[in-house]
Amino acid sequence: MTQASGDGARQLYLEDFHVGQRFVSDTYALDERQIIAFASEFDPQPFHTDPVAAKNTLFGGLVASGWHTAAITMRLLASGPMRITGGMVGAGGEVAWPAPTRPGDILQVETEVIDLRPSRSRPDRGVATVRSETRNQRGEIVQTLTAKLVVPRRPV
Amino acid sequence: MTQASGDGARQLYLEDFHVGQRFVSDTYALDERQIIAFASEFDPQPFHTDPVAAKNTLFGGLVASGWHTAAITMRLLASGPMRITGGMVGAGGEVAWPAPTRPGDILQVETEVIDLRPSRSRPDRGVATVRSETRNQRGEIVQTLTAKLVVPRRPV
Repeated sequence: MTQASGDGARQLYLEDFHVGQRFVSDTYALDERQIIAFASEFDPQPFHTDPVAAKNTLFGGLVASGWHTAAITMRLLASGPMRITGGMVGAGGEVAWPAPTRPGDILQVETEVIDLRPSRSRPDRGVATVRSETRNQRGEIVQTLTAKLVVPRRPV
Repeated sequence: MTQASGDGARQLYLEDFHVGQRFVSDTYALDERQIIAFASEFDPQPFHTDPVAAKNTLFGGLVASGWHTAAITMRLLASGPMRITGGMVGAGGEVAWPAPTRPGDILQVETEVIDLRPSRSRPDRGVATVRSETRNQRGEIVQTLTAKLVVPRRPV
């Protein structure tokens, strides 16, 4: 498993980013079994855990918990090309799920740097605001995430 | 396992809520093994997966992925007292992690209704905005989540 601190990829400092920069992740395929397993542990509701009962819900069939889509997005980010020095650390963000993730979907994340800001109080770091769109194999956006990441500045 | 649509609890419609209403969840204890298992699958970074390497990171020890804290919060919400008719369905929200979750922590969620709004286009439903604070056993807030939930209106 590739680690965010893996030696294989170059580690990025705040100075290595620019607004508009884009990163594209690998893909992640998920099936009914994975959706049910995650939801049984973390989001036990019929539209996430019971393919038959799910047919009579507003989703019309089994869908992944939004938090499962979020976790898969994190996996794709952590193992993707945007390798921040010291790791990918976020203080939070804004998440939205415009469409559900369903069994058989193949997800991929595209991330754009939308703001870069050196810290005023901590000269050794800054904050990168990034917007990640998670799409399925039909190009439909299943999640948007805008997150503020702590990024070290390159030592002088 | 209690389901959000479980027959044991009364199912709530938009009319059953009021601004300022509060709900308190059960508790959830998590250990190092669970933190490593979640992170190995979804957030493979040393401060989430390797107790020894984690000591030399900005966290000073193993911490849970923020998405793990979010997933546990969802579990506590889904199995908690706020049983929305048809299930708890959110279109997204704003999440923040002011402090990390660590091995041995016992989490609990307190939710407050902060806004209620009937849908203009869909007379059968509305949107409840709720703010959930997830605290550890020392009362420290490890997550805040402000989410907009779709809530059916009581049939007339």
